[in-house]
Order: sequence, then structure tokens, then C-alpha cells
Amino acid sequence: MVNEEIIKSLAIQNESKIVLLVADGIGDLPYKNNKTALQTALIPNLDRLASKSSCGLTDPISCGITPGSGPAHLSLFGYDPIKYQIGRGVLEALGVGMELTPYDLACRGNFATLSEKGIIVNRRAGRISTAINEKICEIMQDKIKQIGEVKVIIAPGKEHRFVVVFRGKNLEEDLSDADPQIVGEKMKFAQPLKASAKKTAEVVNEFIKIATEVLKEHYPANTVLLRGFAKHPDLPTMNELFKLTPAAIATYPMYKGLAKLVGMEILKTGESIKEEFETLRENFEKYDFFYLHIKKTDSYGEDGNFEGKVKIIEEVDKFIPEVLKLKPDVLVVTGDHSTPAIMKGHSWHPNPFILFSPYIRIDDVDRFNERACAQGELGRFAAVDALPLMMANALKLNKFGA
Amino acid sequence: MVNEEIIKSLAIQNESKIVLLVADGIGDLPYKNNKTALQTALIPNLDRLASKSSCGLTDPISCGITPGSGPAHLSLFGYDPIKYQIGRGVLEALGVGMELTPYDLACRGNFATLSEKGIIVNRRAGRISTAINEKICEIMQDKIKQIGEVKVIIAPGKEHRFVVVFRGKNLEEDLSDADPQIVGEKMKFAQPLKASAKKTAEVVNEFIKIATEVLKEHYPANTVLLRGFAKHPDLPTMNELFKLTPAAIATYPMYKGLAKLVGMEILKTGESIKEEFETLRENFEKYDFFYLHIKKTDSYGEDGNFEGKVKIIEEVDKFIPEVLKLKPDVLVVTGDHSTPAIMKGHSWHPNPFILFSPYIRIDDVDRFNERACAQGELGRFAAVDALPLMMANALKLNKFGA
Repeated sequence: MVNEEIIKSLAIQNESKIVLLVADGIGDLPYKNNKTALQTALIPNLDRLASKSSCGLTDPISCGITPGSGPAHLSLFGYDPIKYQIGRGVLEALGVGMELTPYDLACRGNFATLSEKGIIVNRRAGRISTAINEKICEIMQDKIKQIGEVKVIIAPGKEHRFVVVFRGKNLEEDLSDADPQIVGEKMKFAQPLKASAKKTAEVVNEFIKIATEVLKEHYPANTVLLRGFAKHPDLPTMNELFKLTPAAIATYPMYKGLAKLVGMEILKTGESIKEEFETLRENFEKYDFFYLHIKKTDSYGEDGNFEGKVKIIEEVDKFIPEVLKLKPDVLVVTGDHSTPAIMKGHSWHPNPFILFSPYIRIDDVDRFNERACAQGELGRFAAVDALPLMMANALKLNKFGA
Repeated sequence: MVNEEIIKSLAIQNESKIVLLVADGIGDLPYKNNKTALQTALIPNLDRLASKSSCGLTDPISCGITPGSGPAHLSLFGYDPIKYQIGRGVLEALGVGMELTPYDLACRGNFATLSEKGIIVNRRAGRISTAINEKICEIMQDKIKQIGEVKVIIAPGKEHRFVVVFRGKNLEEDLSDADPQIVGEKMKFAQPLKASAKKTAEVVNEFIKIATEVLKEHYPANTVLLRGFAKHPDLPTMNELFKLTPAAIATYPMYKGLAKLVGMEILKTGESIKEEFETLRENFEKYDFFYLHIKKTDSYGEDGNFEGKVKIIEEVDKFIPEVLKLKPDVLVVTGDHSTPAIMKGHSWHPNPFILFSPYIRIDDVDRFNERACAQGELGRFAAVDALPLMMANALKLNKFGA
């Protein structure tokens, strides 16, 4: 990749429209039938698109690196995922749908069990139910709204998990985890990892003390562990970097949150894939870059549900003609990373990639799957290069040098 | 790419000879016949060469980036085109055939029209003829030979364009353009963009004042606009970096100039492709690296003249057997960038690349074109890596580490 400053200096705004269709975790490994989900699915429209496109494979981060959703998406949005690392707390906050500002410090919380002797005896409070979690979070939020001048915002997650956002000036993320990590040890407070984080550590530790006081009667959830402290990354927007006016269509909070971090407008949409494509059609005139996210290819991959993954791919396939009817100047269909059903998790395998535009060398690939795309004209390339490639094909990049 | 310091530390001099044949802008997109120029041309010799070679595709700069001739050539010569950026004024000076020294500051000039009230009313002096331009440049040069201790060298370009080189000590390139960019504004002088450029700005602005005085009687060309101030980049030579003794065979001033910047010997040759190959044969004993540049593939591409581009490729093809008769240890045939006839300009598409040497894995590619090379053993790689690859195949690179 070239430095983003180079891309920034070459970017121009024009009327061309780019659609980036991301089927999360679509890349796969051969399953029991010796085929990947893409090789198994009946996808006549995607195959036809591949036959009119340039194809390839992208590495989300680098050869052999399995990415989380954060870095995998940043790459696709044109951000160097090594330079721009989004802390765990922030990703967790986005995942539960919290809206973050540049003043925010976020962290992950666990409800935990503290013995009378002050020892952590269960790091997950015996996995309390989500319903109880929600109730306790409400009680905590009610009692703790502010610590000094720092606003405190609490949101429940699943089972024993929650998120705390500290909103205030001069907060720092260089704190050790306030979590002993193993049972049988005393409560642990956050330590500043540099001098300027001392005030932040005091705020966080004050929160832990008050929360433990508030939770006294809520055994087994009678204390909190906080970890993954992370400041809002305050990324340059895609408009600042690439002069794009981007919009996001996604159903899960995490992806809306990531899109918001890079300055995309988050479009209201429904829960179904059908509704997502309708949202694309309805808003097509208003933006010049669309990120449309399909979540369930990844969810079924994570569950090891190969048939489910195949079905979602077949469902997506049905909407390809509708996208083409909109006549986008550039259409890319790809994944953010692979989630092979046999691995039940993210993996490092490169993503199949279709590039459709008037300025391509159409190659011999006429199927959309991992093996076919490996033969494509684009070869194998870094996912972070996909955005400059889309911009080039939309004639949104000037010449470099004379 | 690895750092050039690594290549430098591994480079060794030996008797092996490398020929780098660059057909400028040879890469193409499918034209009205659904084929690229290379797919259309009858090129039995290049196809045979491909069948005995390793093939691939190179990105001039990075995925999606359309390069100018300067950075595209620097890459092929093994120089990181982001690290070594050649300013516009220098490229313009090379383009009109001026010889530059490390003391030189070059800029592009326009003859323009100044009204009696001191307003720029035409930025191109109504596009005066090249003949008039040449005459006025001569008059200016005659009256302005020196400003203080700084020598001034003026060379005409086409129509209203010319180049000025300021030759002296401690000149700086950090100057704003002396050009209002739009008509209806006053003359604009160069401003120093850092303190140490103040003296240079004074010299440049003194030139503008004297030139405007000299041009008084030459309405509509009665003033000058200067822009793209750039110092000679003072690159390390290919001999310093790679221990090569390189020679360039090119017909256009720009490419001779670029070759000279990296320390190549510029061989005298004629205007025709035939003469260029004769020059290669005649000088084959004297150097160990030959850069042979074919310009017209690019020129016809820029003109949108697909048939012209095809014919030039067929003409080049006829000389391949003569090159092989010289028994170069390494022969590479490629482009510096693509210039698709349908785009009438440079583009970002990767270049087809043939590597012929005794140390290759011959692949299945038996045609020299974009689609065939995409299937080659070399895959897709950065053009800046081509030089280390050529050197390796000429056994001019030692082992890295023990």
C-alpha cells in the first residue's frame, strides 16, 4: 500500500458511485462435501458477475494473520489496520450499539463475585442471565452518573458482560486492566501506565469502588472487573482522506459503529437482507460510496453451520441483479475475512474478490469462489489496496507525478 | 520491496548482461474488438519468448495508482518512487532536453498577457505559436543570462510553454507558484515556503520583473508565469546502488533525462525503433545493463489510436530475435505503465512482464499479453522489485544473511 497521504493528495470528488458489498466471513475452507460454502451454493448471478469482472483474492491484514472485525473492516475502508488500531473497549462499546464521541474512554466490564475476605472467587458472577445483567446495569447507572467532571455511561451486554464509557476531557487509555485474570486473588485496580494517565486511573478506580458499594446486595454479581481501556480512535473520515460521501447499510451495531468511526452516514434499514438492498436502492442518489454489510455469512460460519452459510450466500445472490440495475460505476463483492464453518471462527485465508467496472480487463474467471478467484487477473493483494482500486475504477484518483 | 540499502549491500559486479526493454504504456484495456493491443497484435517472437520465460504483472507504484512517466520509470530502475519524487519543473526540463546539474532549480513557464492595469488577462498569451515562442525565448535569454550569481537558462517548449533553469548555490525549491492560476487577477510573485528559500524567491521574482520588462513590446506574450519549482533530485546512481554500468537507448528527451538522473550513459541513436536496436547491438560489449525505451506505444495510446499501438507492438516484435542473438543473460520485456487507447491516457492497470534467463521456472504462459501474463509464475508484484529480480537472474546479488 502507499501512504494514505499520497491517496489523499490524489483523490478527487466526482459523480461516480461505488458499491462495496461485504459478506462477512464469506471465505471458507472445504467442508465435509470437499467444497467451500461458495462452491456449494447455487449462485448464478454472482457467477455471471464474476464472468464479467476482474477477480482476485485479498489478504485482510497480511499473510497468515487472522483479523478481528475491526481491523478487517478498516482495511476494506482503506485504513492501514496496523497504523489505526481500535482498542477492545471501543469495539465492545460499538458492539452494544453505544454512540461514542472523541472524548470517550471505553472498557469492557464483567460482573464478578467478591468473597467476604475481598477475594475474587468468580470472574463471571456465575454467568448471570442477560435479564439480571440489564437490571443491575440500570441500578448502577442510576446511582453513578458522574465521577467528578467525568460522565459515566453503562450499557449491558450478554450474560455477565457490560461496557462502561467514561466521557470527559484529558482521559487516557494507558491503564492496566482492573482484573486479576484468575480467581483466588484480590480485587485489582487500574494502574496508570504513564504519568499523564494518573487522573484517569483515579476516576476508573473510584468507579470500581462505588460500583462495588452499589452492588453489595446483588451477590453473586457484587463487584466489577474492567479491562481493555481504549480511547475513541478519532480517525480521519473517509471524506477527509478520500473525498467520498459514504453511507453504510448494516444491521448489527458493531458494523454501524465501525462505519461511523470512519465518518459514514448510517442509513436506517430493517433486519433482513432484502431490506438492506431496498435501503441501497432508496438512497442511491444521495451518496457516492455504499458499504452494504451482510452479517449472517459470518454468524453461521462461527456456529459451524455450513448449510446456513450456503443459504445466506444463495439469498444474497438473488439481489445482485437489483444492484446492477442501479448501474453503479464500480461494484465490489467480497468478504472482510474468512470464517470457515469447519473452524467455527475467523481465519487468515484470503477473501474472494470481484471487481466490476467499465475499466477492467475481464479475466477467465466465471465462478465466484475461492479457487476460481485465485486465477483472476487481480491476483492476490492486500485488502487495504481495495479502496484505491475502487477509486481508480471510479476515476476518483488523479495521476501520481508527471 | 526491501530497502535499497539491503540491495546495495548485496550487489556485486560481474560480466552478465541485462536488457530491459520498456514499451511505454504497452498495457491496455480491451478495445472495441474486445481485445487489448497486445492481444490483437501478431507477435510470434514475443509469444515464443513468453513460452520460454517466467511471466507476471507489475504494479508501477501501488494498486490503483496511475503514475506519470517519472515515478513509473524510477520504479523500473529500482528506485522507490514514493521516496524519490521528481518535481514537475525538473521533469519539464528533461522533457525539452535540458541537461541538469545538482545545482539546478527548474520550473515550468507560461507566456501570458498582462493588461495595462497589471491584470493577467490570458494565462497562455493566446497560445502563441511555437515559432514565436522560440524567438521570444532567444530574446529573453539574450537579455537575461544571470541574476546576481545565479545563472539563468531558458528553453522553449510548445506553444506558450517554456522552461527556466536557475543554476547556483543554495537554491531551494520550497516556493509558491508565481501564477495566479485564474485570469482577472494581478501578477503573482513566488513566496518562500520556508525561511531558507527567501533568497531563491528574490532571484526568481527578479527574473519575472526583468522578463516582463524585456517582453514589453511582445504583446500578447508580455509577461511570464512560473510554477512547479523543483530542485535537481540528486539521486544516487545505479552504479552506486546496484554496481551496474548502465546505458540508455531512448529517442525522447524526457526518458534520456530520467536515465541520466540515475546515472545511465545516454547512447546516441536515431529516431527509429530499428536504429534503437542497432544501437543496442553496437554497444553491447561496453555495458552490463541496457534500458531500451520504445515511446510510440504510449503516444498512440494517448492519442486513442489503437491500430497505431498495435502496429508499433508488431514492429518491436520483429527485433526480438536480434536481441536474443546478442545472448543477454537476462532479458525483460515490459511497460512502465498502461496507456489504454480507450482511456487516451495513463492508467493504474498492471504491466505484462516477461523474464527470460537461464535461472527461471518456465511457466505455461505462451502469449505475451495482459491476460496471459496474469497466469504467469511471477504473479503480480511491484515494479520496483523488477530490478532486484533482474540482478538476481544475472547472478549480481549475493546471499542475504548466513
